[in-house]
Amino acid sequence: MPFLQCIEPDCKAQFASTTPIYTCERCGGLLDLVHEVKAIEPDQLRQAWDARLASKAPADQSGVWRFRELLPEVEEANIVTMIEGNTQLFEAPRCADYAGMNQLTFKHLGLNPTGSFKDLGMTTGVTQAARMGTQNVACASTGNTSASMAAYAARAGMKAVIFIPSGQIALGKLSQALDYGATVVQIDGDFDDAMQLVRDITKDSPLYLLNSVNPFRLEGQKTIAFEMLQQRDWRVPDRIVVPGGNLGNSSAIAKGLHELLEMGFIDRLPKITIIQAEGANPLYQLWQHHRAGETQLKLQALKGASTLATAIKIGSPVSWQKALRGLWWSDGEVEQVSEQEIADAKSHHRARWHWL
Amino acid sequence: MPFLQCIEPDCKAQFASTTPIYTCERCGGLLDLVHEVKAIEPDQLRQAWDARLASKAPADQSGVWRFRELLPEVEEANIVTMIEGNTQLFEAPRCADYAGMNQLTFKHLGLNPTGSFKDLGMTTGVTQAARMGTQNVACASTGNTSASMAAYAARAGMKAVIFIPSGQIALGKLSQALDYGATVVQIDGDFDDAMQLVRDITKDSPLYLLNSVNPFRLEGQKTIAFEMLQQRDWRVPDRIVVPGGNLGNSSAIAKGLHELLEMGFIDRLPKITIIQAEGANPLYQLWQHHRAGETQLKLQALKGASTLATAIKIGSPVSWQKALRGLWWSDGEVEQVSEQEIADAKSHHRARWHWL
Repeated sequence: MPFLQCIEPDCKAQFASTTPIYTCERCGGLLDLVHEVKAIEPDQLRQAWDARLASKAPADQSGVWRFRELLPEVEEANIVTMIEGNTQLFEAPRCADYAGMNQLTFKHLGLNPTGSFKDLGMTTGVTQAARMGTQNVACASTGNTSASMAAYAARAGMKAVIFIPSGQIALGKLSQALDYGATVVQIDGDFDDAMQLVRDITKDSPLYLLNSVNPFRLEGQKTIAFEMLQQRDWRVPDRIVVPGGNLGNSSAIAKGLHELLEMGFIDRLPKITIIQAEGANPLYQLWQHHRAGETQLKLQALKGASTLATAIKIGSPVSWQKALRGLWWSDGEVEQVSEQEIADAKSHHRARWHWL
Repeated sequence: MPFLQCIEPDCKAQFASTTPIYTCERCGGLLDLVHEVKAIEPDQLRQAWDARLASKAPADQSGVWRFRELLPEVEEANIVTMIEGNTQLFEAPRCADYAGMNQLTFKHLGLNPTGSFKDLGMTTGVTQAARMGTQNVACASTGNTSASMAAYAARAGMKAVIFIPSGQIALGKLSQALDYGATVVQIDGDFDDAMQLVRDITKDSPLYLLNSVNPFRLEGQKTIAFEMLQQRDWRVPDRIVVPGGNLGNSSAIAKGLHELLEMGFIDRLPKITIIQAEGANPLYQLWQHHRAGETQLKLQALKGASTLATAIKIGSPVSWQKALRGLWWSDGEVEQVSEQEIADAKSHHRARWHWL
């Protein structure tokens, strides 16, 4: 049986996977779900996962639950799925050219049911909520998380409560959450304030917290690495490049890859490369200290984070310790880009093809 | 070899599939691509199609080209694909309840690469354009078509020109087309005017027309029926309900089903049920005449079509004869809904779940 374990090296406290906590009860650290996978035969599992691609059972078709041997244990009938995942890899030769690279491949996670990678974590998060007997789930969100949680909650017959910052949220996403029947509470503050509020509220209430501090969210998101490798016939790429906001996704991908390495599916990790916007770059700043040789790293939260890339406009990322761990595991990198660079990259393609 | 054939019963003129025409050269009627499929073994093909679900070759992974035995012939290397299709079926018990039905299943075509079913037709349309040696493609569009054509044209290294009506187009979709490098020409008029203009322009120019009057578009879109049946293990549903705008999609689905019936894959057709908005209901009006016993049906174009459902705000649908044929083949229905009904259905779910 998988169990929860504090990731802090000095703590490592363990808890049953059904304990209703989101962070370590002893030290407040982030929690991992740790799998004790015995006698794994990578080749055998790889074959089973390939066979499921042609199955018509929802748990096999899901790009998350297809890999259920490495996920939280749950009866197939209790899985809350919208057949998420199955997102394709696209070769992008012109983008590669622009970036001065030989090859660049996109995994288009927008092809998930509600339009973002959040669905990969919500299927495991809401399934865990159901396992705990929860009727109400909550999150703070600027967009994608709220739409995804609302959809999966509706699927499971649960009520969804969403805390959003005032202004600068994605309106299309908000209306999606409303369409799925969520209750939306707008607060006077930014995302980090909303996040703090929902953490406080869910501590002693029957609301189950489904932000990415919840380790069950990351269990689903780690399958991004699994499916990508399955699609590449288990050839490990040089790098995996991800945008860095709350840092749940980079943390999840790193955890997935690390597990695959430990179980013998792959023999090295791709370098995890996290890109932050200059105006919302707390991990980048921390990483500069690391480069300067400092070992006692502590992330300085950034007040008033600002970027047009609203989904990563986060000054106090919840999963920074896990992201840092992933960077160390994979000999990774953190880079920042300016607003101008973001706009240039977006307009470049357009300019090249203008011809009338 | 498939060939083009006029659908008008009194004409039925035939043309080679590489003839650069979009409508019948003799009478102006719509064209079908007719397949001469010899010695089809449905069970054998079904097995081959199931096997391709686990393949890693793009032409097998595509939810369109997976069914290539029933599609325009093309060398696998010349297929322009973004691994479209593979869209899931979702049971919607609460929607079924609202509509007073026992069961309702959605096929979520929004999970295609650019976000709409248009991709299914663009992979075949742009592949045909490439087969004809085309360098420039064009369409009229209020949104989804432009985004899709621009993406596939970019993929194939072609230039895309899009004619849009003034105002009331989906801005997110337009910016998507611009991001893919399309040239967008706004005209003073509505969709029907833009459609007429692009048909005139493409008649004698090297611009290849990729609206749904192009029969190769519908070849791809007919796989909606194929994939849906594959996902249902070839159990035919009672009805297939589709919104009706330009009527290409209902026409394509009907053609696909009709081919499956003729080849012995299924033994009956589901009733094709087309829903139009009250303010853009030319097919509904025509259908009322049909009910009154009239046999010489001619669609009256509607000036100033109006509905909040902008994607079906079309007064002069290009494919009305093909849609009508599909309704007759399947003993189908046309129904209209008011703006109020559209809004009520959208808000219903929200109201039910409001609880704070």
